[in-house]
Amino acid sequence: MSPPRSTSGINDGILQRWKREDSLKRGSLGLRGVALFFSLTSFLLMASNNHGNWQHFDMFQEYRYLLAVALVSSLYTGGQVYRQIHELSSGNNLFRPTTAALIDFLGDQVMAYLLISSASTSIPVTDRMREHGDTLFTDSSAATITMAFFAFLFLALSSIISGYKLSAQT
Amino acid sequence: MSPPRSTSGINDGILQRWKREDSLKRGSLGLRGVALFFSLTSFLLMASNNHGNWQHFDMFQEYRYLLAVALVSSLYTGGQVYRQIHELSSGNNLFRPTTAALIDFLGDQVMAYLLISSASTSIPVTDRMREHGDTLFTDSSAATITMAFFAFLFLALSSIISGYKLSAQT
Repeated sequence: MSPPRSTSGINDGILQRWKREDSLKRGSLGLRGVALFFSLTSFLLMASNNHGNWQHFDMFQEYRYLLAVALVSSLYTGGQVYRQIHELSSGNNLFRPTTAALIDFLGDQVMAYLLISSASTSIPVTDRMREHGDTLFTDSSAATITMAFFAFLFLALSSIISGYKLSAQT
Repeated sequence: MSPPRSTSGINDGILQRWKREDSLKRGSLGLRGVALFFSLTSFLLMASNNHGNWQHFDMFQEYRYLLAVALVSSLYTGGQVYRQIHELSSGNNLFRPTTAALIDFLGDQVMAYLLISSASTSIPVTDRMREHGDTLFTDSSAATITMAFFAFLFLALSSIISGYKLSAQT
């Protein structure tokens, strides 16, 4: 005897929802993993950007800002990736779902704004220095800005997913 | 005779949903209206920021960028406010709801990123000039940056509403 049609339809619906939630979880984990990679690269590049005399990142407020944001972004994405892997493997959640969705969305969104802000800030000063010729210092700065911009792109995508999750919760 | 309980419950649900959609519409219209005001002020302040000699916004790439973004933001928020008022008064929609939700969300989000980017870019150059004393030129620039930052804040809030609407559609 086949099961009643309506029950099977509901089961299909729940299965589909689970599958979607699962792919959303993996998607946001992947995006945050890539953002972590770019943030960390950006932070390490800027922190080692010291080529003697005035060619030191500490001499420019724009570069200090970028360094600070890259550090915070590395810590944030690192913490999120750690939490998500922990939740996927153990199956129990650190926070209540609504709290987690809110933290995720606000975190992604604020970090994306900070990253685009700091990357934009550092462009003009690098640009002006490069007018007098490229050096190792300006090249490292340009690479750092690019990495911060990529980190922004992936966190902006991740914030769309976490915004969707938040409104599915409420 | 009172109506059946279940129908009344459904009616209440629909009524509540309508009320929520209505308050969301008014909320996003208000936020965009305020963003339009700040974008337009920012654009006009920067466009008239000419105090002779090198004290002209056109001499600085950061200020040209801010002017362009403020113009685009004024046009975007102006268009959105016009469309929303038209839809509220006539009752018929210019776009299909899903298309409108997508345009709203992408537009708000991209404009918010552009505004925070251009406001951040203009801060260091203004900061350096103010170290040598405040003039009308640096004061106007600082005011423009503040207006662009306020426009960013209200568009960022509006993008949360339009993100919620988009995921309610899909």
